Amino acid sequence: MSLVVVGSMAFDAIETPFGKSDKIVGGAATYIAWCATNFTPVKQISVVGGDFPAEELKALEARGVNLEGVQIKKEEKSFFWSGRYHMDMNSRDTLVTELNVLANFEPKVPESYQDCDFLMLGNLVPSVQRSVIEQLRNRPKLIVMDTMNFWMDTMPDELHKTIKMVDVLMVNDSEARQLSGQYSLVKAAEVILQMGPKYLVIKKGEHGALLFHGKQVFFAPALPLEEVFDPTGAGDTFAGGFIGHLAKTKDISFENMKTAIIIGSALASFCVEKFGTTRLREIKPADITERIEEFVQLVHFDINLE
Amino acid sequence: MSLVVVGSMAFDAIETPFGKSDKIVGGAATYIAWCATNFTPVKQISVVGGDFPAEELKALEARGVNLEGVQIKKEEKSFFWSGRYHMDMNSRDTLVTELNVLANFEPKVPESYQDCDFLMLGNLVPSVQRSVIEQLRNRPKLIVMDTMNFWMDTMPDELHKTIKMVDVLMVNDSEARQLSGQYSLVKAAEVILQMGPKYLVIKKGEHGALLFHGKQVFFAPALPLEEVFDPTGAGDTFAGGFIGHLAKTKDISFENMKTAIIIGSALASFCVEKFGTTRLREIKPADITERIEEFVQLVHFDINLE
Repeated sequence: MSLVVVGSMAFDAIETPFGKSDKIVGGAATYIAWCATNFTPVKQISVVGGDFPAEELKALEARGVNLEGVQIKKEEKSFFWSGRYHMDMNSRDTLVTELNVLANFEPKVPESYQDCDFLMLGNLVPSVQRSVIEQLRNRPKLIVMDTMNFWMDTMPDELHKTIKMVDVLMVNDSEARQLSGQYSLVKAAEVILQMGPKYLVIKKGEHGALLFHGKQVFFAPALPLEEVFDPTGAGDTFAGGFIGHLAKTKDISFENMKTAIIIGSALASFCVEKFGTTRLREIKPADITERIEEFVQLVHFDINLE
Repeated sequence: MSLVVVGSMAFDAIETPFGKSDKIVGGAATYIAWCATNFTPVKQISVVGGDFPAEELKALEARGVNLEGVQIKKEEKSFFWSGRYHMDMNSRDTLVTELNVLANFEPKVPESYQDCDFLMLGNLVPSVQRSVIEQLRNRPKLIVMDTMNFWMDTMPDELHKTIKMVDVLMVNDSEARQLSGQYSLVKAAEVILQMGPKYLVIKKGEHGALLFHGKQVFFAPALPLEEVFDPTGAGDTFAGGFIGHLAKTKDISFENMKTAIIIGSALASFCVEKFGTTRLREIKPADITERIEEFVQLVHFDINLE
């Protein structure tokens, strides 16, 4: 019984209104792994080039990440993304995208990963995500998929095929609108829940996140922060906290997914405090517990109506 | 002991992506009164022209609104505003503003209003808001002030003088940023709470509302709606629910303000369902209770961390 994570491990160069990073380690699966290992070990599927630092891989292994499924292509370069955030930190411009090793990535699921009962598909080419599902002999108990507008624009048919196979889809608000053709997020959710997934998470950045399931809806705020220093990886970190909690507790009820959303939001609130994965590497279990308590305080109210 | 409401009573003409209204009855104090009277009677201070429909005034009186403080200038015209909302419904263009009777409005607080213990200053010229505070012989138990960017642009000194005198200030997120010169809402709140008010409510439209008091912060979501038909008056309705609940319960603790925020949000969620005050006139106490229960469901979670 294990959690398998699929996604990119890469380099990012980030500009925000508060500063500029060097080329630092990033990638969806990197963030997910750093976050989910707070709760449970991770079996990672990804691909990196010969330029990916060995010490980064060692640090992940020490953290409880099984790297058997991570291909290292010594002669090639790792995926590289560079972007610039606007003042509101909810929008960004992509400056550079170099696919490199991702261009021809064919994931191979190791035999030791066949016990997978929780599968997290980090944002990636939809057909690559699907290939992992298809290589698993037993369908996992829960498949969670993150994706983005880029795949909606460039390969909608592939995307829809993969979406149809998953239990939980995660997108941001503008992606939910694009995918559904509906402006109202409530209507967007109705449309998307017809596409296959039983659960839909809509991430709204600093405005929190919504979880839809049938007619049920749950809202979790984002913690109001003094500074959002670097939002890169916040969505992946959210996903890592969400799947990490579910995989640890092995409870996929709507009630427990609500808890998982709060935990994902709490972890994401750390992620944005420093560049890259820096903050995720620093935090201790007590920090997480304390932050979750802040969420409880933030939204708790008692109402007594006559 | 009473709730006094100050603000405009006016005509609006509204365009949204979903339709266009005729010239309909609006104005901050109109929305506040329709909403707050769900909880407690209202003593209204405003000014209208001879064109304001007598049946509207009768309907408000029948609702429990004392109109002794409403001046009727028979030879003049009521305030008129026309605006067009964008697709996101959080931004709008003003098409027409005719001040008319508001241009020279000098509010007069009737003797029978001197028992005021809750004062709601709806959005209006800051000096006019202040004039009402100054005419009251005993300071109310709680003064709540709504305002907008227009006064920040045109008469910041007047605005600051009034802000200094109130207990609770209500603004939207972009106004909080403008007033404080801070982008982070947490930092904006710190700055604004130095200006006089002990409480700050930041309204974020479809993204909910934040309540700040010292180091405490509370977040209430907006209900995810299938349709936002017309956002006009939603902020005033929110204010009406907030002050109405506080005036009814006479409890101005932080805990009870949290409840008041939820009640304001619930009422605002009705307001946007139809043009103008239409929906506020239709709803019954059972509708309000039911909607508040939806808020409880929306944000309720139990967390058990080891």
